Amino acid sequence: MDTKKFILTEKEIPTAWYNILAEMKNKPRPMENPQTKQPLKEEDLYPLFSRAAAHQEMNTTDTWIEIPEEVRDMYKIWRPTPLVRAIGLEKALDTPAHIYFKNESVSPVGSHKLNSAIAQAYFCKQEGITNITTETGAGQWGAALSLAAKHFGLELAVYMVKVSYNQKPYRRSIMETYGAEVIASPSMSTRAGKKIITENPNYQGSLGTAISEAVELAMTTPNCKYVLGSVLNHVALHQTVIGLEAEKQMEMAGEYPDIVIGCFGGGSNFSGISFPFLRHNIAGTANTRFIAAEPESCPKLTRGKFCYDFGDEAGYTPLIPMYSLGHNFAPANIHAGGLRYHGAGSVISQLKHDGLIEAVDIPQLETFKAATLFARTEGIIPAPESSHAIASAIRCALQAREEGKKKTILFNLSGHGLIDMSAYDSYLAGDLNNYHVPDTEIDSNTANLESLA
Amino acid sequence: MDTKKFILTEKEIPTAWYNILAEMKNKPRPMENPQTKQPLKEEDLYPLFSRAAAHQEMNTTDTWIEIPEEVRDMYKIWRPTPLVRAIGLEKALDTPAHIYFKNESVSPVGSHKLNSAIAQAYFCKQEGITNITTETGAGQWGAALSLAAKHFGLELAVYMVKVSYNQKPYRRSIMETYGAEVIASPSMSTRAGKKIITENPNYQGSLGTAISEAVELAMTTPNCKYVLGSVLNHVALHQTVIGLEAEKQMEMAGEYPDIVIGCFGGGSNFSGISFPFLRHNIAGTANTRFIAAEPESCPKLTRGKFCYDFGDEAGYTPLIPMYSLGHNFAPANIHAGGLRYHGAGSVISQLKHDGLIEAVDIPQLETFKAATLFARTEGIIPAPESSHAIASAIRCALQAREEGKKKTILFNLSGHGLIDMSAYDSYLAGDLNNYHVPDTEIDSNTANLESLA
Repeated sequence: MDTKKFILTEKEIPTAWYNILAEMKNKPRPMENPQTKQPLKEEDLYPLFSRAAAHQEMNTTDTWIEIPEEVRDMYKIWRPTPLVRAIGLEKALDTPAHIYFKNESVSPVGSHKLNSAIAQAYFCKQEGITNITTETGAGQWGAALSLAAKHFGLELAVYMVKVSYNQKPYRRSIMETYGAEVIASPSMSTRAGKKIITENPNYQGSLGTAISEAVELAMTTPNCKYVLGSVLNHVALHQTVIGLEAEKQMEMAGEYPDIVIGCFGGGSNFSGISFPFLRHNIAGTANTRFIAAEPESCPKLTRGKFCYDFGDEAGYTPLIPMYSLGHNFAPANIHAGGLRYHGAGSVISQLKHDGLIEAVDIPQLETFKAATLFARTEGIIPAPESSHAIASAIRCALQAREEGKKKTILFNLSGHGLIDMSAYDSYLAGDLNNYHVPDTEIDSNTANLESLA
Repeated sequence: MDTKKFILTEKEIPTAWYNILAEMKNKPRPMENPQTKQPLKEEDLYPLFSRAAAHQEMNTTDTWIEIPEEVRDMYKIWRPTPLVRAIGLEKALDTPAHIYFKNESVSPVGSHKLNSAIAQAYFCKQEGITNITTETGAGQWGAALSLAAKHFGLELAVYMVKVSYNQKPYRRSIMETYGAEVIASPSMSTRAGKKIITENPNYQGSLGTAISEAVELAMTTPNCKYVLGSVLNHVALHQTVIGLEAEKQMEMAGEYPDIVIGCFGGGSNFSGISFPFLRHNIAGTANTRFIAAEPESCPKLTRGKFCYDFGDEAGYTPLIPMYSLGHNFAPANIHAGGLRYHGAGSVISQLKHDGLIEAVDIPQLETFKAATLFARTEGIIPAPESSHAIASAIRCALQAREEGKKKTILFNLSGHGLIDMSAYDSYLAGDLNNYHVPDTEIDSNTANLESLA
């Protein structure tokens, strides 16, 4: 464990986010109004989001977007985060590859989610908004937004997927300790929730359902906006601080990545680590591989359909051009709750369609095996979500050994797993399973969706 | 939350530990053999501890003890840790005081305990020892030693206080994920454990009992040593990296502390943050106050007897000169499990007796109130143990406000509370209590112990 950290100073926290939308040669198709099928304009998003977020969502012209001073100030609580050479892991794998990871687990809430939570809460505060609402799966995003909301003096209501609300009571307690209200979803507090509970009283919830409830609350509450933790362009934008810092740190290490890897749920941490490096591929000055590591049980990028689909279960959101398993897809109850989402953001989907990024799907048991090896060699117990990136990095490092090639691999450690120890318990006890999704299920879920291929 | 961090480079990790024993004018009395009442010599400790630890335990001559390169290399996983100016907390308290905290919660196991675990595991490995054993209360120490043992290739058995084993399953899972064996104490695997279970089948354990079991296992197993996480001199020695780093960082901040605070269980983190500053008091070049913050329910320093007592329940250890509540004292079931120990280390006890340090005892509800305010203003959810230091710092900051004086306060944030969220749940639900220990209980527990006052 002769780990070597590369540390930046607070002054080196990026001063601008990188907006890949401005540099993409093929831009994603616009979001559409589901009734009229007309492309959405920025103003169409104002009822739901802060104006600043709506503007960033649609901004296809500015490559660099300044980070407000108040947001940068709050980033200083834990940023810049370390870049670490995983020498212990390299030795255990006996690989010629050099493995680096960006350690986003050092944030006070234990994950990268705070990077966007702070920005979005700040924009709402600036615009005089008093209440915000969101959904959360495993609770990483909800915890981050709870802290950000408290800092800027906003009231926050979080719809938490019911299965996680019951299985991960500690993440709920974290949100409540920061002062947020947490509601198990589906709930009786919204029309969408009531409908689902009435039809299926035992339904344990999904991110799609929780989004429906949060959106409905925002639309029906005065001075209340909805805040999202992944999928959308402005969220990916805020997460680029990860890759921008990593770029400087790889320079300190004297290397440039051959492969960049992030786990994949809706795209926030993968975009964050990838886009700042991907811009050099776009400019033709680098030739890095980018790998999105998703769960075998929720394989939207590897096996989904490229189509227009809703972002939520009830169909409240605009239609988004995405790789999707269908907005009614019910993913298996894997422990990587943050990756249980049916679709990929529109930028990521376009990049995948154009061959600029790759994707792999990884069985749950392989992710826990990788996570345990990582914990024992690098000391940090990773979040089940992040373990997908580790498993993918290990595959690449073993391939480098087979080929006898020195490869430089960079992955994002999006969070630690200290709140997920019951998952490790199950793994060590031999109680975990893999979940393969049958082709027929994907086909039937996406049959009616308009293909973009 | 305009926090300001002060960050050192890896090169600035201390190269030597500070040994206060060499500089104390009144040295503590020696440990004694309970049968012969003779002072213990270094060799008497060889059956139990590594020789290096035994030597450090008795070293009253060398002020600086070099940190082995292998230990410093492993420190680099997370050290140096940040020093943070708690501006958010200062604002919330409307105090002229400047409050700083050393953030030891950033270690991969979430606490300062790794500082000594690494050193002790390294010494055992160097001496060809293959197996080690220890006790743990809340699990912070056990988690740290599990990681250190895995790194140096040692087998580890941890006796975990039964009440924590059942109430904090996540900490147990952390130890198992790192590859350690965890046994609920009292257990049937030792004579000491069997005796207690036979006499009282429902006994939920204590640190004193768990120490008895670990010591017995070490004494009866070939090539096995016992490793302790607090109380003893060599443990406090290893923890001085905390204060040595903090000293450099306070210099970066351009201030020197008027008050230094640590929570107090057996003394490890309090010694770590205090001793490097205390040496300037000893030299007559500073006049800082040092406050050990202990629980109202386990008030050894504020209300215990200065006497010779055993370090464990069964009486296996040498007699230690200490402030003690009696080695059979059964502390209330507070959530700060790491502070539930009947005695204070001999150095701390002597310093307290000589008026070089102070102590306060703090009710449980006050610690959780302080912890929640800290979480909401500084972002980090503190361990219940560390919350005692925060509560004490808040008392000092409010006094500074009353007196209209600018005071510089430094406390050690010994760990985060992400594994202790059930405690916060109980607090937010109004289910927690304070526990005051009656004088009669302390008197009767310590009546037969030889006073040193």
